[in-house]
Amino acid sequence: MRPQLSQRGRLMPASPIRKLMPLADEARQRGLRVYHLNIGQPDLPTPAALRSRLAGVPEVVAYTPSGGTAEFLGALQRYYRRLALPLELNELIATTGGSEAVLFAVLATCNDGDEILVVEPFYTNYIAFATMAGVRLVPVASRGEDGFHLPPLAAFERALSPRTRAVMLCNPNNPTGTVYTRAEIEAIGAFCRERGLFLISDEVYREFVYDGREATSALSLPGLEEHVILVDSLSKRFSACGLRLGCLATRNRDVYQAALRMAQGRLSPPGLAQLAALGIDELGADYYAGVVREYQARRDVLFAGLSEIPGLFLRKPEGAFYFVARLPIRDGEDFARFLLSEFSQDGATVMVAPAQGFYASPELGADEVRIAYVLEKRDLEASVRILAAAIPAYRAARGLDAMAPAPAPSAPAADFHRPVV
Amino acid sequence: MRPQLSQRGRLMPASPIRKLMPLADEARQRGLRVYHLNIGQPDLPTPAALRSRLAGVPEVVAYTPSGGTAEFLGALQRYYRRLALPLELNELIATTGGSEAVLFAVLATCNDGDEILVVEPFYTNYIAFATMAGVRLVPVASRGEDGFHLPPLAAFERALSPRTRAVMLCNPNNPTGTVYTRAEIEAIGAFCRERGLFLISDEVYREFVYDGREATSALSLPGLEEHVILVDSLSKRFSACGLRLGCLATRNRDVYQAALRMAQGRLSPPGLAQLAALGIDELGADYYAGVVREYQARRDVLFAGLSEIPGLFLRKPEGAFYFVARLPIRDGEDFARFLLSEFSQDGATVMVAPAQGFYASPELGADEVRIAYVLEKRDLEASVRILAAAIPAYRAARGLDAMAPAPAPSAPAADFHRPVV
Repeated sequence: MRPQLSQRGRLMPASPIRKLMPLADEARQRGLRVYHLNIGQPDLPTPAALRSRLAGVPEVVAYTPSGGTAEFLGALQRYYRRLALPLELNELIATTGGSEAVLFAVLATCNDGDEILVVEPFYTNYIAFATMAGVRLVPVASRGEDGFHLPPLAAFERALSPRTRAVMLCNPNNPTGTVYTRAEIEAIGAFCRERGLFLISDEVYREFVYDGREATSALSLPGLEEHVILVDSLSKRFSACGLRLGCLATRNRDVYQAALRMAQGRLSPPGLAQLAALGIDELGADYYAGVVREYQARRDVLFAGLSEIPGLFLRKPEGAFYFVARLPIRDGEDFARFLLSEFSQDGATVMVAPAQGFYASPELGADEVRIAYVLEKRDLEASVRILAAAIPAYRAARGLDAMAPAPAPSAPAADFHRPVV
Repeated sequence: MRPQLSQRGRLMPASPIRKLMPLADEARQRGLRVYHLNIGQPDLPTPAALRSRLAGVPEVVAYTPSGGTAEFLGALQRYYRRLALPLELNELIATTGGSEAVLFAVLATCNDGDEILVVEPFYTNYIAFATMAGVRLVPVASRGEDGFHLPPLAAFERALSPRTRAVMLCNPNNPTGTVYTRAEIEAIGAFCRERGLFLISDEVYREFVYDGREATSALSLPGLEEHVILVDSLSKRFSACGLRLGCLATRNRDVYQAALRMAQGRLSPPGLAQLAALGIDELGADYYAGVVREYQARRDVLFAGLSEIPGLFLRKPEGAFYFVARLPIRDGEDFARFLLSEFSQDGATVMVAPAQGFYASPELGADEVRIAYVLEKRDLEASVRILAAAIPAYRAARGLDAMAPAPAPSAPAADFHRPVV
């Protein structure tokens, strides 16, 4: 008798970021250069301060403590202290990437069938962890016209149910590039406090804020000590995605203890990564400033170039290294496939991530794509030229012009940047 | 309003292997040497062939493919081929330790409320993954008198319910050191085939078999291609626990695809570990033979020494580097605490793992401890001397002699090594 996959095994979504990869491989085999605007793998070098630590690899690469080595937790504590976010060592758990911190947070707060409110579009892999945990992500939609800032609290209220256990927020936001204001974070914090909800705050892009902005950490909110579970990662900050090292931080003792017991279950976080990560102590303000300068310049190149494309709608991204753009198309996945399989210009094409996968509401995001800017400026300029030519070519190939003219960019909506308070 | 931990967050068990660690730290602060017989952290060096690969760390420590790098999967494929276990590259997924492979296997096979049959005593961390997944582990007891070999199939039949989805087996076994015979593995395989159950086979101690034994891989069973999910790890085999690198292998396409989608959700397995692991190609039969020789010699030292202790019952361990011994005590945890807090001999004491945590049945294991032999022989000899003195001291301290004399070792039961077929 053939055994059957579990329901959650069937429901697990394929990564919308990675599932078109075979088409990109085929394009390369046809001799094309593919500019990858689809994935957030920074091209900047992992700082030598981190890599050089590997020369000190011990003779026995042993289990570390389940919550992380004392040395690594100390480095994390100093990092947060410099941000005026004081944390005790027993409020920090080293995790296998930010991913594992999300999983631990979901499991510690939700039972099977419980619900978490998320602002959509949202980081698509949240769906994977929710599916593993049997948890329903209930979307609260944000809109491009509002720069994807938070919808009014009434929308969160409407989404509540007796099974709601937490709000999950990513700030600065992947995929939208939005940096929520302090007022927005405070309003969500107050909502969680009043409703007895956890606030799972994914802040892995904390430093990636432009035009002088600052990202407000949920950990800085007074009176939310029992509510906030911080998800963090070294991946983007230190261009070190392959380390698979992050952390969960919380001042809620029950959550800390539960997460530590889960951490004990999987024995320990990656040891070589914790060794390399000790190098973060050597990186000062100039390191972070240099990274921000580079990404801000890239954003400027992309925003200026894309704003010239007729029918493309995009507000100026505020942080992270992604944004969601609306295109004069009807199916982002079909457009992404077109780029890889039917289009090229000067021997090159572009890969983008269809935005549908970042929405839980099936009716949203079909005309949007997520674009990451982790390539150098020259490649971003080439990517803009390709997209500028590809969009009219796609509309012609799919007969969209015959159906409706390319829409003009929407005027800013009246409630643009309306504060949620 | 204060948010509440989830039920599974509350139910997550503390690691019985690690939870007495603070007492060991206190013993060290009092100046005692503590021999750690409680944890399976090998003391042998991680082979230089692995560590030296880290000199080639790339400038950007990037995400790897979610299922593992082609190079690492190729090395795994060659490793299994040498064991006459042919696997395609798309039947292998690199995981963050064997732990993640267990989690993926449980999630791919079970929904919340489903059940998995496990032979108890079993590797205690299975409880952690089952709790995370909302899955019930249904124990089928094995007995020290049988050398912890498999109970008759009738016991598995009795444990079945409509919610049973899989059998989980660890061979060679942690914690018992038992190596199941080919007949036993075939019988369990036939049971899974008839009942439409998955067979999750944890074979991380494959090479650790003594006295000329061989471990039978579930992957070698004909007709079980749709049933078997192999869990494997580099941790013990290469004395590389801190890498956090393992794999899941299955010929079931649905399970492979579901596990790959989970792998995509967490992006990639540890990158530095995959780099180091390429060194396994350089390790030949002499490497494995040397490791086995060393552990077999250690087992011999411990078995000979412990067999002399009155009231201690132990059959000769056959594999892995653990065993479960029955002591003339009533509470293994109390005895472990006694060793760390109330006893010492010549400035040293011993840490053992109470066996209760390896049982799901609350009435079993109270008079047993798990002992790991990952110390050199001299330290094992010292540990035997300490245990020989500690047991009568403990019995005197707790007044056990007044209640009942130390039991003599049980005679081998009539059904010792009774085949399950």
